[in-house]
Amino acid sequence: MESPRLRYSVRRQVLNELSVDTVAEKSEEVKTSVSAKIKESLKCSRPKAKNCFFSTLPLFYWLPRYPFRENALGDLVSGISVGIVQLPQGMAYALLAAVPPVFGLYSSFYPVLIYFIFGTSRHISVGTYAVMSVMIGSVSERLAPDSDFMIWNATTNESTVDTVTRDMQRVKVAAAVTFMSGIFQLLLGLVQFGFVVTYLSEPLVRGYTTGAAIHVIVSQLKYTFGISPDRYSGPLSLIYTVLDVCYLLPTTNVGTLVVSIVTIVGLIIAKELNTCFMRKFPIPIPVELFAVIIATLVSWRFDLKTKYEIEVVGQIPSGLQPPVLPEFSLFASIIGDAFALSVVGYGIAISLGRTFALKYGYKVDSNQELIALGLSNSIGALFQCFAISCSMSRTMVQISTGGKTQVAGALSAVVMLIILLKIGELFEELPKAVLAAIILVNLHGMLKQFTDIPQLWRTNKVDMLVWVVTMILTVVLNPDLGLAASIAFSMLTVIFRTQLPKYSLLGQVPDTDIYRPVEDYNQVKEIPGLVIFRSSATLYYANAEMYVDALAERSGMDIAKLLSRKKKLEAKRLRKEKKEAKKAKKEAKKREKQVEETSEESDHEEKFEITMEENAHETDSDLPKAIILDLSPVNFLDTVGVKTLRNIQKDYGEAGVQVLLSCCQNCVVESLEKGDFFNEKVTKAILFSTVHDAVLYCQKTEDEDMEATHF
Amino acid sequence: MESPRLRYSVRRQVLNELSVDTVAEKSEEVKTSVSAKIKESLKCSRPKAKNCFFSTLPLFYWLPRYPFRENALGDLVSGISVGIVQLPQGMAYALLAAVPPVFGLYSSFYPVLIYFIFGTSRHISVGTYAVMSVMIGSVSERLAPDSDFMIWNATTNESTVDTVTRDMQRVKVAAAVTFMSGIFQLLLGLVQFGFVVTYLSEPLVRGYTTGAAIHVIVSQLKYTFGISPDRYSGPLSLIYTVLDVCYLLPTTNVGTLVVSIVTIVGLIIAKELNTCFMRKFPIPIPVELFAVIIATLVSWRFDLKTKYEIEVVGQIPSGLQPPVLPEFSLFASIIGDAFALSVVGYGIAISLGRTFALKYGYKVDSNQELIALGLSNSIGALFQCFAISCSMSRTMVQISTGGKTQVAGALSAVVMLIILLKIGELFEELPKAVLAAIILVNLHGMLKQFTDIPQLWRTNKVDMLVWVVTMILTVVLNPDLGLAASIAFSMLTVIFRTQLPKYSLLGQVPDTDIYRPVEDYNQVKEIPGLVIFRSSATLYYANAEMYVDALAERSGMDIAKLLSRKKKLEAKRLRKEKKEAKKAKKEAKKREKQVEETSEESDHEEKFEITMEENAHETDSDLPKAIILDLSPVNFLDTVGVKTLRNIQKDYGEAGVQVLLSCCQNCVVESLEKGDFFNEKVTKAILFSTVHDAVLYCQKTEDEDMEATHF
Repeated sequence: MESPRLRYSVRRQVLNELSVDTVAEKSEEVKTSVSAKIKESLKCSRPKAKNCFFSTLPLFYWLPRYPFRENALGDLVSGISVGIVQLPQGMAYALLAAVPPVFGLYSSFYPVLIYFIFGTSRHISVGTYAVMSVMIGSVSERLAPDSDFMIWNATTNESTVDTVTRDMQRVKVAAAVTFMSGIFQLLLGLVQFGFVVTYLSEPLVRGYTTGAAIHVIVSQLKYTFGISPDRYSGPLSLIYTVLDVCYLLPTTNVGTLVVSIVTIVGLIIAKELNTCFMRKFPIPIPVELFAVIIATLVSWRFDLKTKYEIEVVGQIPSGLQPPVLPEFSLFASIIGDAFALSVVGYGIAISLGRTFALKYGYKVDSNQELIALGLSNSIGALFQCFAISCSMSRTMVQISTGGKTQVAGALSAVVMLIILLKIGELFEELPKAVLAAIILVNLHGMLKQFTDIPQLWRTNKVDMLVWVVTMILTVVLNPDLGLAASIAFSMLTVIFRTQLPKYSLLGQVPDTDIYRPVEDYNQVKEIPGLVIFRSSATLYYANAEMYVDALAERSGMDIAKLLSRKKKLEAKRLRKEKKEAKKAKKEAKKREKQVEETSEESDHEEKFEITMEENAHETDSDLPKAIILDLSPVNFLDTVGVKTLRNIQKDYGEAGVQVLLSCCQNCVVESLEKGDFFNEKVTKAILFSTVHDAVLYCQKTEDEDMEATHF
Repeated sequence: MESPRLRYSVRRQVLNELSVDTVAEKSEEVKTSVSAKIKESLKCSRPKAKNCFFSTLPLFYWLPRYPFRENALGDLVSGISVGIVQLPQGMAYALLAAVPPVFGLYSSFYPVLIYFIFGTSRHISVGTYAVMSVMIGSVSERLAPDSDFMIWNATTNESTVDTVTRDMQRVKVAAAVTFMSGIFQLLLGLVQFGFVVTYLSEPLVRGYTTGAAIHVIVSQLKYTFGISPDRYSGPLSLIYTVLDVCYLLPTTNVGTLVVSIVTIVGLIIAKELNTCFMRKFPIPIPVELFAVIIATLVSWRFDLKTKYEIEVVGQIPSGLQPPVLPEFSLFASIIGDAFALSVVGYGIAISLGRTFALKYGYKVDSNQELIALGLSNSIGALFQCFAISCSMSRTMVQISTGGKTQVAGALSAVVMLIILLKIGELFEELPKAVLAAIILVNLHGMLKQFTDIPQLWRTNKVDMLVWVVTMILTVVLNPDLGLAASIAFSMLTVIFRTQLPKYSLLGQVPDTDIYRPVEDYNQVKEIPGLVIFRSSATLYYANAEMYVDALAERSGMDIAKLLSRKKKLEAKRLRKEKKEAKKAKKEAKKREKQVEETSEESDHEEKFEITMEENAHETDSDLPKAIILDLSPVNFLDTVGVKTLRNIQKDYGEAGVQVLLSCCQNCVVESLEKGDFFNEKVTKAILFSTVHDAVLYCQKTEDEDMEATHF
């Protein structure tokens, strides 16, 4: 099976044919066949051209093909279950977004319907999401703070907050930021920028959601304890809020705290039971719905609102509201938040969508997802929804109850519609503390992510750093600015990872053409007279200087020293020559006087000079014959990289050491060409396709040299 | 010379010994010998331990060894020349820094002396630098604007600026920001953070200095035209200033403009002459000094100040001033500017220093340079200097006039001292327009850098992008914020470059063990039944998804489709089985009625099933036997990368395609190990040291399979 080992000359010949004019010599034949192949595979992987209509309106593609008999029952059960879960979650997340609960219900209705039409993921449950909600809450509280809505009550001589006006303003802010984030998503989708999500690596997303979860917890403490801490915004606001909460703890409303604790404990127990009996029940028990119903009944029966001053949800208008244009005057002050929202919303949705697409064997189109989410948000915002994404917990409910397509989502929207039209107003007596408890209990999944830290510590310390830094930045700088800082940091880690590469000298694995780092393997042998050098990373501006230093250190040849020694020797030689000339003159004069005398001194000087020259020769023969740079890990070359290689080539060349490059990728060779690396002196003959070829070349020329000297 | 080609089994055996337990099996012997070697080379490349004293106070090392006879004359001539150049430059750059000219003279004295003691570069001329000066100017004008120093003149009924108080305040601001930047440099030097400069790649530095040059030009227009535009700060301030200057052009002071034009034209002509006659004169003519002297004489003789209202330099106090502590209250508002100054100053100095060190064969210690500059700035600031770096033009003067060591710098400081003590006050009548003209003419070097754009366009488009974006960001966001944004952008380009790699299928160069991309070479042949895949870049979070997609496209195997087809086939088979079972029941019932009849229908069904199964088999045999991933360009693996490889391994494995990894660096193997890539199913046997080994392995197992089926 094996091809016979070729001698160097033949190999070299083949390679010369191949490697030198890489771009020019491409065979059109091969090219077309390859591109045809690629096109074909592209064609089969996604619908193109005539399917453009279907790709922008996927509903019309898959709904006529909907396998009714197989999926209908599962989707129905799943849709109702998700709708039931969305009722308490929607109200609870509305608290997070600092708007009245009914807007959380709207947000669980309109966007879901729109996603049903445009979305390509069959399994994710689009709707309210804790992280997005808390981000909106921070915007709406910043732009419509309590302090702007104080009214003086003449009878009690106290100023109170005009909550109705305030909430209306907050809804406007939330709708505006949602509208804008939707427009951003739409634009990104239309220019096919779906790839931006690739900057959200997994450690980053998990660290970010954990950091956001901490924000969620802190924002809910006021409802849990029934206190009203001051509102802070900007960096470090979380810490100020926590301090304020601690300061206000003595003023806790005991009734509210009791409700919170009872609900939290009840929910945890019920959820545990749910997990235990998962297999026995076909559908998980909607514990949150029960909690809401029981709490509402208790609150109404015992009149908790007036007796214990427990804050309740309050008026829930029944029915739907006509669409309203967002307030454009707000746009300038929310542009940053809107962008952060659009990226986070998309990032979460697409990563969940892809996970399940891979699991169930279909494809999610990232740009279409952007468009779908963008339309959901921007159209939803007209109906005063706040920004949505998809939630992991609801998606799990949707899948576990048998949901197989987007139809489940549409059915859950229908459930929401019924609730909005008929049942919503029944929940007016529900204590807000119960909603806060639902939020807190739902966060356990995100907080579990803290176990990532020991796991990442074991597997990849840099990724752990990304996780931890992202979490801290998110907590300290708030979710919007924190996201930008985290993405910047995670990009920085790419620089870190390639900035401190491992530099190695390579040696030959005996009797093979394989070269490996001498420090890692005990059987490899360095080739005498050759330095084979490799960096583990790309050579670019951030590590170019280190590359030169490492090469000098490992090879034991310090260019500065080599050159300065050369210069000194030359200078000395020049001086000596001058002296000689002077002496010769003197001698001549002396000779004129004493012609026969021989000068012993001059002899001595000559001897000294000879020793010096010998010395110089000796150090020269210490030097290796050639340096072979293994450039296989080089991904690209920037101008600094080309310059570095040129300097190495020039400096070592001047010191009499040949520099050969091996294993260059085509793009590297192109960069070298464009960067004027090659000239009359330095030709492409210094490029070798493998380290072994370069070694053989060196050994061959050495042999020839020796033969030449022999004959 | 060549080792005989080894058969696969031998090679594999050798590699098994070597590759599997890379970390554990390291021979201590090899390790120590290597580390000893490195230590040795480290030792010879820089003085250590006992030389600690010398490395912090290099003066005491090199001054006793100063070759007086060789260098003294050159250094003396060079020192006087540089001192003469520094006089007009110092005064001019003081204008840029928005402080009275004498402080520019101080800045050309104290810091130079301190650098003489602590610096390690022998050739750079430390002192005032245009970019640094304009940065300081923007800070001092921001914190001490004209509007803060208006006084009401009761007699003229006009408000005028109290320039004396204003300038005193500006000097304080400049000294404070200089002190702080010096402290930053000192701290960075002490924690050995000299490497931060590696983030300043060459295209970035050149783009940055070009952008800064534009700031310098704009800041000097008011002196050139004799107008007083409003002061703007923050982003886009340059554009506002230009608009304001254009608006004020009709109010130009004609006298000032004439002086400016005459000086600029004169300087340009003189400089051209200087370049032409460079070889004839041993020392370049100090044209700027002549310009200053002539202008002062003319101004004094014709009383330009009162006759034509031309602004002159004004009072120059003679002698030195006692040190003053910087105003600590200013520190909070200048911290960002100070950091930018420290980075820029260091970046410029070290890049120039390194260039000349390489040229003249010695080494510049980057951390010691940071300390030297830090001390120069912080101690200088106590004497009310403004931040210094080194200037290219002065350095060229220093070298071309024969300067060989830091002594030249020290002598130039002595020249400055004489000027400060005796001659300075003579220049009080010098028009500021002349200084502005000197600055503008000196900028031609920086503006010449615009020719980088076509050159970089040809050699490296990404680096051109870095250059252009840096320049624009610097112009738009001002030098401080612009620097930060540019560094961030230049890091982003590393992501760009690796984010869109080239994906290729590799084929064998006939009769060799070399594998090359099939689309680049016309002689390579794809190995039938094998897919050899390579990405030109590292596999990490920003391109992991694309890697999977590209692999699917190039190999023609869409994992989603494969899996879904498999699932569908299975589902159909299940359904069929159910039907069969039903039919069997029916049959049984039928048989009860009509025992003898044979069912043709059932026969047909069976046939159909067989065809389907055959079909399934056929598509399976279409699949390649194995996928070989060439990971040689992978520099590191993050968790996303490991996960991606694991998914590829799992998904293709499930579809019956073997996945083999080849050419992994040790760090990649370590990441795979730590990331739990290997388990009982996926062992290290899938790692191959070359692509060829993997190919041989596949072919061997294929042969064995065939043999097994034959016998």
